[in-house]
Amino acid sequence: MIVIWLIVAACSTDTDEHNDARTGPSLILIIGDGMDDQQITIARNYLVGSQGKLTLDSMQYRGSVQVQAVDEDDPGKAVYVADSASAATAISGGVVTSRGRIGTTAKFDSDIVTVMELAQSAGLRTGIVTTASITDATPASFIAHVNQRFCQSPSDMVKRNERFPPASTDCSQDYKANGGLGSIAEQVASSRFDILLGGGTDYFSDFIEGSADTTVLDNARANGFSTIFQSEHLRMIEPKKRVLGLFSPSTMPVRYRGENGSQARLLERVNGKVIWPEPYGCEKNPEVGSVPTLGEMTEAALRHLANDNGFVLMIESASIDKQSHYRRPCGQIGEVSQLLDAVHVALDFLDSNSDTLVLVTADHGHAAHLISDISGLAFLNYATPGRFARVQTPEGSVMGINYASNDSPLWDEHSGVQIPIYASGSGASNLPIFIRQTEIFDISISHLGLSHPVQAD
Amino acid sequence: MIVIWLIVAACSTDTDEHNDARTGPSLILIIGDGMDDQQITIARNYLVGSQGKLTLDSMQYRGSVQVQAVDEDDPGKAVYVADSASAATAISGGVVTSRGRIGTTAKFDSDIVTVMELAQSAGLRTGIVTTASITDATPASFIAHVNQRFCQSPSDMVKRNERFPPASTDCSQDYKANGGLGSIAEQVASSRFDILLGGGTDYFSDFIEGSADTTVLDNARANGFSTIFQSEHLRMIEPKKRVLGLFSPSTMPVRYRGENGSQARLLERVNGKVIWPEPYGCEKNPEVGSVPTLGEMTEAALRHLANDNGFVLMIESASIDKQSHYRRPCGQIGEVSQLLDAVHVALDFLDSNSDTLVLVTADHGHAAHLISDISGLAFLNYATPGRFARVQTPEGSVMGINYASNDSPLWDEHSGVQIPIYASGSGASNLPIFIRQTEIFDISISHLGLSHPVQAD
Repeated sequence: MIVIWLIVAACSTDTDEHNDARTGPSLILIIGDGMDDQQITIARNYLVGSQGKLTLDSMQYRGSVQVQAVDEDDPGKAVYVADSASAATAISGGVVTSRGRIGTTAKFDSDIVTVMELAQSAGLRTGIVTTASITDATPASFIAHVNQRFCQSPSDMVKRNERFPPASTDCSQDYKANGGLGSIAEQVASSRFDILLGGGTDYFSDFIEGSADTTVLDNARANGFSTIFQSEHLRMIEPKKRVLGLFSPSTMPVRYRGENGSQARLLERVNGKVIWPEPYGCEKNPEVGSVPTLGEMTEAALRHLANDNGFVLMIESASIDKQSHYRRPCGQIGEVSQLLDAVHVALDFLDSNSDTLVLVTADHGHAAHLISDISGLAFLNYATPGRFARVQTPEGSVMGINYASNDSPLWDEHSGVQIPIYASGSGASNLPIFIRQTEIFDISISHLGLSHPVQAD
Repeated sequence: MIVIWLIVAACSTDTDEHNDARTGPSLILIIGDGMDDQQITIARNYLVGSQGKLTLDSMQYRGSVQVQAVDEDDPGKAVYVADSASAATAISGGVVTSRGRIGTTAKFDSDIVTVMELAQSAGLRTGIVTTASITDATPASFIAHVNQRFCQSPSDMVKRNERFPPASTDCSQDYKANGGLGSIAEQVASSRFDILLGGGTDYFSDFIEGSADTTVLDNARANGFSTIFQSEHLRMIEPKKRVLGLFSPSTMPVRYRGENGSQARLLERVNGKVIWPEPYGCEKNPEVGSVPTLGEMTEAALRHLANDNGFVLMIESASIDKQSHYRRPCGQIGEVSQLLDAVHVALDFLDSNSDTLVLVTADHGHAAHLISDISGLAFLNYATPGRFARVQTPEGSVMGINYASNDSPLWDEHSGVQIPIYASGSGASNLPIFIRQTEIFDISISHLGLSHPVQAD
């Protein structure tokens, strides 16, 4: 870890809009993990039909974003497909890094100053809401600095992540004993955030590095965090307290699943003839239990953060990505609908806080691909070689959803496609129609009146 | 064919912009066939690098478009993946139809009034430029009315298209002898367009229906078209003449191909181990010959069309789609670059004709998918089950381009993803960020001051 000198300054920004603002210049940044145009279209066709409009579709601005990553060993070399760690780091800190890195630079491992740190230093309040573990790559990139996304807890720090040999670099350079900041959970515990809501109790029950009796959660409490674990406690947050809410062991259960657990599968053939599967619809996931929705967490966070000095809130719908990895179209659709709930809450907030900017974007594209529900070449017995689902939509038609980036039974992979960005609120109409991912950082600090930091290589 | 009563009115539109307009309210509609966000990203990474910007990226507006199609037998039922015929018909006439249909309604086979017909009736000039045959689905949907896209020439009218049994409906209902308008080429020949430039001599050399000595081309000349066949003749078009320029037998040769003809292929495995192919770059297609570029045709068309009353010009870069069907990433990239040339010419025209609106969009999404050049699961010997290419970019990195919508050796298929729309010029900044495909028709006629026709079901 290298300490970086930085300049932070809070400036007042022009407020030439309505005088109804209860809160200072603020930013609500909503990230749909893996939410590319395929995901949005699939969700629209299911949720409101092909003639319908999503909440996103009525926002003031839409542009597209070039996803950015670089090679770990040769940071001058572009890598066209990002992961959540590199992408969220580009957004949070405005610096392009290599896949797997959290708030650190490729090769040189310098810590990257984030919009959250700049905002905290300038007296703005900060919060994060996610349906993943709060230690997962996207939220982590707004909180922590570590060379490897899988070092989520103290015990992760000392074991190789055997599922991912290409990403198996250990995190020993980030041991506190080696002058580092520790695991992601430890950095969450020692952070200055005002509110952090998501999953991840599993990562906070470890003893902290070098201790046999103090857990990460103990440390968070010692650092002033109130901890909550039940959905109903979201309504009872004390205004002046700093809050860490953890509502599931890791990723929260998703809203929808395929009927009877159906998901995309390899097509069967009998005597060379393709057997097209029966279409299935989506149903409520029976595992969803009593965890709060993304919309409920967003409401609680906004109630907690609104103040005269302004705030930054990052909200992630995490499992659009995860369900696409696992080839579960209904899972994806439900998590886009969770994101839409959060957008709805954010736009409602905007109604009476006109100095707020709401940005909605993704971190990278994904595998799910909307194709014909029966191939145009079916008469020749040709079909997709990938995992395929036929999803029955409420309007009475059928979508073909294909996953064919990888033949592994484990999962499908990301795409490097340019991704959407939507905006409403202060300055939204003036955004350029095409930006690179790091420019989201520039837009964020410019809107908040924060000075650009001097970042290390 | 059913004749439709329609209302046409030319109205003056507000011209609250610069006073430099040489031409009346005009529309330049540029369609990248199959040009979704994947295609644009792949082309950007290759043509200008991941830090670069395309001409598109600096336009004034970008939105997204819900692709529309319906079932032929049950036109109330949405079909989520369009073809060029249904999509271009939605754009040209504002009516959603079934796949394969050209300017006619699903099931009921009514002719759909197009923006071109409305413009012609109102005294505006009209033109079409394409790198496909002028009889291909996209341009045809702006010129003709026929139940089946494959009925391009008189001889097509009487044979089943054996490659496409699902689309094998014959066109006998459109025989002139049966009261129809004849094949697409015959309808081109009898049309009122001022300029038509593209490929397709093959379709104009047939004898017209019921004749043993008059070709379709003879009929076009009898209808007042000057015919040109050489690129250099584009500079010598007489201002008052109506022009049909045909520069190749069918689709024009594309700009780029993979080095030594390389394209995406199934991955080889040796003893279960994936053999990742060597990356290849793009090279000029040796078959390109002396056909005019899309930019040159666009320049010629704009010179010919500019006038006080205004005009409508539809420009298509056709082989983004065709090269993606054939899994040829370099072919796609070259045809996006042809489209960018046309956009550049259109934006230059806009500089001195501020009452013009330039729209750039696609008709549908496609199969090409930008993924990692080597799978993150390669260490477990997993890889895509599709056709795959590793394309070396001039900036020194490698893109993985995957085609896996279909395992046929013939081709890959379309996607139903929402597609981009870009705009510059008069009214561009006021367009909504999300529209359905038929709304492009509404925007077009509104901009041109034409009244909405009464369309049949």
